Amino acid sequence: MLVVQKYGGTSVGTLERIRKVAEKVIAYKGKGADMVVVVSAMSGETDRLLQLAAKASSSPDERELDVLISTGEQVTSALLAITLRDLGFHTVSLLASQIRIVTDSAYGRARIEEVEREKVMSALRKGQIVVVPGFQGIDSEGNITTLGRGGSDTTAVAMAASLKADLCEIYTDVDGVYTTDPNITAKARRLERISYDEMLEMASLGAKVLQTRSVELARKYKVPLLVKSSFVDGKGTLVCEEVPMMEQVVVAGVTYNKSEAKITVSEVPDRPGTASLIFDPLAEAGIVVDMIVQNVSHRGLTDMTFTTAKTDARRAYKLMEKVAHEAGAQVVTVDEDIAKISIVGSGMRSHTGIATKMFAVLAKEGINIEMISTSEIKISCVIKEKYGELAVRALHTAFGLDADEVVEER
Amino acid sequence: MLVVQKYGGTSVGTLERIRKVAEKVIAYKGKGADMVVVVSAMSGETDRLLQLAAKASSSPDERELDVLISTGEQVTSALLAITLRDLGFHTVSLLASQIRIVTDSAYGRARIEEVEREKVMSALRKGQIVVVPGFQGIDSEGNITTLGRGGSDTTAVAMAASLKADLCEIYTDVDGVYTTDPNITAKARRLERISYDEMLEMASLGAKVLQTRSVELARKYKVPLLVKSSFVDGKGTLVCEEVPMMEQVVVAGVTYNKSEAKITVSEVPDRPGTASLIFDPLAEAGIVVDMIVQNVSHRGLTDMTFTTAKTDARRAYKLMEKVAHEAGAQVVTVDEDIAKISIVGSGMRSHTGIATKMFAVLAKEGINIEMISTSEIKISCVIKEKYGELAVRALHTAFGLDADEVVEER
Repeated sequence: MLVVQKYGGTSVGTLERIRKVAEKVIAYKGKGADMVVVVSAMSGETDRLLQLAAKASSSPDERELDVLISTGEQVTSALLAITLRDLGFHTVSLLASQIRIVTDSAYGRARIEEVEREKVMSALRKGQIVVVPGFQGIDSEGNITTLGRGGSDTTAVAMAASLKADLCEIYTDVDGVYTTDPNITAKARRLERISYDEMLEMASLGAKVLQTRSVELARKYKVPLLVKSSFVDGKGTLVCEEVPMMEQVVVAGVTYNKSEAKITVSEVPDRPGTASLIFDPLAEAGIVVDMIVQNVSHRGLTDMTFTTAKTDARRAYKLMEKVAHEAGAQVVTVDEDIAKISIVGSGMRSHTGIATKMFAVLAKEGINIEMISTSEIKISCVIKEKYGELAVRALHTAFGLDADEVVEER
Repeated sequence: MLVVQKYGGTSVGTLERIRKVAEKVIAYKGKGADMVVVVSAMSGETDRLLQLAAKASSSPDERELDVLISTGEQVTSALLAITLRDLGFHTVSLLASQIRIVTDSAYGRARIEEVEREKVMSALRKGQIVVVPGFQGIDSEGNITTLGRGGSDTTAVAMAASLKADLCEIYTDVDGVYTTDPNITAKARRLERISYDEMLEMASLGAKVLQTRSVELARKYKVPLLVKSSFVDGKGTLVCEEVPMMEQVVVAGVTYNKSEAKITVSEVPDRPGTASLIFDPLAEAGIVVDMIVQNVSHRGLTDMTFTTAKTDARRAYKLMEKVAHEAGAQVVTVDEDIAKISIVGSGMRSHTGIATKMFAVLAKEGINIEMISTSEIKISCVIKEKYGELAVRALHTAFGLDADEVVEER
C-alpha cells in the first residue's frame, strides 16, 4: 500500500503542529503503508517572502520570485524530516529538483509535465518516509518554478499519479466537502463521497476545499482523493470515480458565489461576429468570463450578458464601453449586486425535472432569476445578492440534503 | 575582466543593504567587468533556522539540517537578483545544484570537490550578472550539503578559481587586514598587501577576517583576494602571492589569542610512546591541540605541555587525569590565564635574529615567556594573559609596524 499525504500551511504552522503531523504519518506507516508526505510552507511564510520581494522591487522578476518563495516549502519539509528522524524513523526529504518534478517555464503558475518515479521509489524501497516540498518544480533547464497558490495539492496528486499510489490524502482545515457552506446553513452535511466531476463543479463554483487543478489531475489519473481535517479526527470526504450507487442521489451539493459581477451590453446588432467582437477584447485583457447568456433577437438587436470576477468588473466595463461604441450597441450596465447559486450532481445526467424543481423552489421564495446557465451535472442561477443565503437554504432542503433528513452514508 | 565578489551576512542584513550591494555590483559592472556575486544569508537568518531545528530535535539529522539552512543563502540571492533586475540589469541567480558545486557528503562541513564552469560562463556570455548563494553545495548524489560557518568565503574563492577570475573581492565588516587588532593599539595599520602564507598564519592565530579554508584554496589556485569593507570606501587588503618587494618587510603583523588554555602533564616517564599515550585520546575525543612543548628529560621524567581551546579545556583535563594515572605521571595542571602572542612574516625565512629580538622585547617589558613555538614564518609565545595587550603594543612598535612610523605602501 502506498499513500501520499498532503498537509497545508496551517497544518504545519508551528513546530508543535509539525510534530503532530509526524505522529499522524507514523501512525499510518505503522499500518504497513509506504508513505510520501507533501508539505506546504508554514502559514504566513509565503506572504512574508512575497513582502520582502515587493519591498525589493515593485515588479519582482518572476524567475527569481520562484527561487525565493520555494524556500518556504523547503524549510517545512526539512523540519518535518528532522522531526520524523527524531522520532526514530528513516526519512528523506526530496526537493523537486532531486525528484525531478518537471514543469513548463511559466514561473509562478507552472504546469507539471512529468514526475520521475525512480528516486522516490528507491527511497521507499529502503523503507524511508519521503517528504516532498509542495508547490514547486523545475523546468527542463533546471530553473526553479512554482505552481501557483494551492499548488501543493497539485504536487500531491501528481506524486500519487506518478507513483500509482493507492490513496492521496489531503489534510486541510476543514473535515471534508459539505453539501453547502456550513456558515450558511447548520444543516449542511459532510459528504462521504463525491465524484471528480461533481467536485470540479463544486470547486469552481465556490467550495474552496480543493484546487480545481488538483481535482482535474486526480480525475485524469484516477487518483482517489481523501479530504480530511488535520485537527479533528473524522472520515473526511472521498473524491473518486462515480459508482453506480452514487447515482441514486441526484443533487450532491448547493454552492454559492458572490464574487462575480454581471455585465450587460444591450441592443447589440445581432449578426455573425458580434460575440467575438465582445469577447475577444476580454480574452486579450486576460479577463476570465464565467456565464454567458444571449437572448433571442428582436428587430435585429440582442442583449449580451456575462459574468466575471468583481475584481475584473471595472476593466471589463471599460472595454465594453469601447466595444459598444464600435458595434453600435446602446447601453452597457454593470451589476455587482448578484449571487450565483448552483446545484451540482451527477445524477442530473439521468434525471429530468431538476431544473424545473430548482426554478419552482426559487419562485416559491419570491426570488427572481436573472440568468440561467446549465451543464451536464449542474444548474446555475444568478439572483440578487440579498437573496443568496435564503436560496441556498431553500434548495438544500428541497433537494433532501439537510443533515437531519438524509442518511449519512451515500 | 572577470570579478567574483562575496558579501557577508551583515552586508546583506536588510533590503536597504541589499540595494547598496546591488549598486556596488552595478558600479563595477559599469567598468566592463563580468560579475559573479556570492552572498551569505541575511544576518541572523542561519541562527533562526538552526533554532527551529534545535526545537524540532535535540540532535537534528545532519542531511536535513543542510536542506534547512541552505535556504538562508537562497533567499538572499533571490532578493539580490530581484533588486538587480529592478535596477534594469540582466541577472540570474544560480544555486549550487544548478551550477553544480560538487562537494563530498560530509553534511555541515562539506569540502568542495569541483565547480563546473559551463552554466555560469554561459550566463556571463549573455551579459548576465550571476548571483550565487554561498555556503552550499551538492554531493555526487545530488543531496544538498553546506560548507560550515564562513563557507561563503570558500564558495567565492572556489568560483573564482574555477572561472579563472582576475580578482575575488571579499566584502566584510572590516576594511582590510591589520598589522594587529586595532582594539589593542590605535597604531595598528591596514596592510595594502599580505601573502597567502602570512594570511594563513594570521587567520589561524586569531585575525578573524578570512576563513583559513578560503585562504588555503586561494593559495592553491593563486586567486588574488581583496578584502574590503561593505560600509566604508577604501582600498582594502590584497591577499596574494609573495612578490620580491614584500620580503623587505620582515614582520607583517602581530596576533593575539586569548581563547586557549594550557595543560601540563608533569613528570611523565620519558619513553617511546608517551606522546601518543597523551595525544591519541585527545584526537579520539575530537579535541584540537595547538602548541605542543616537551621539555628535556630529567631522571627519565619529562613535562608535556600543550594548548587547546578554552572550551575544550575541561574535557581535555579529564582525559589527562586518566592518562596520567595510567602512565604513572604525577600532576596535571590547567592554566586558562594565558595569551598567545605571535609575530608573522614571510621575511623571517631570510632573516635571522627575529626570535631573539622578540624575546628581548618581551623581557624588557618584564614579561615571562611560558611556551615558545615557531614555524618558518611565525614565532608564538605563551605569556600571562594580563600582559597580552602590553606585549602586542611593544612588539608592534619594535618591529616597525606602527602607523606613524611606516610608509603606507609595502
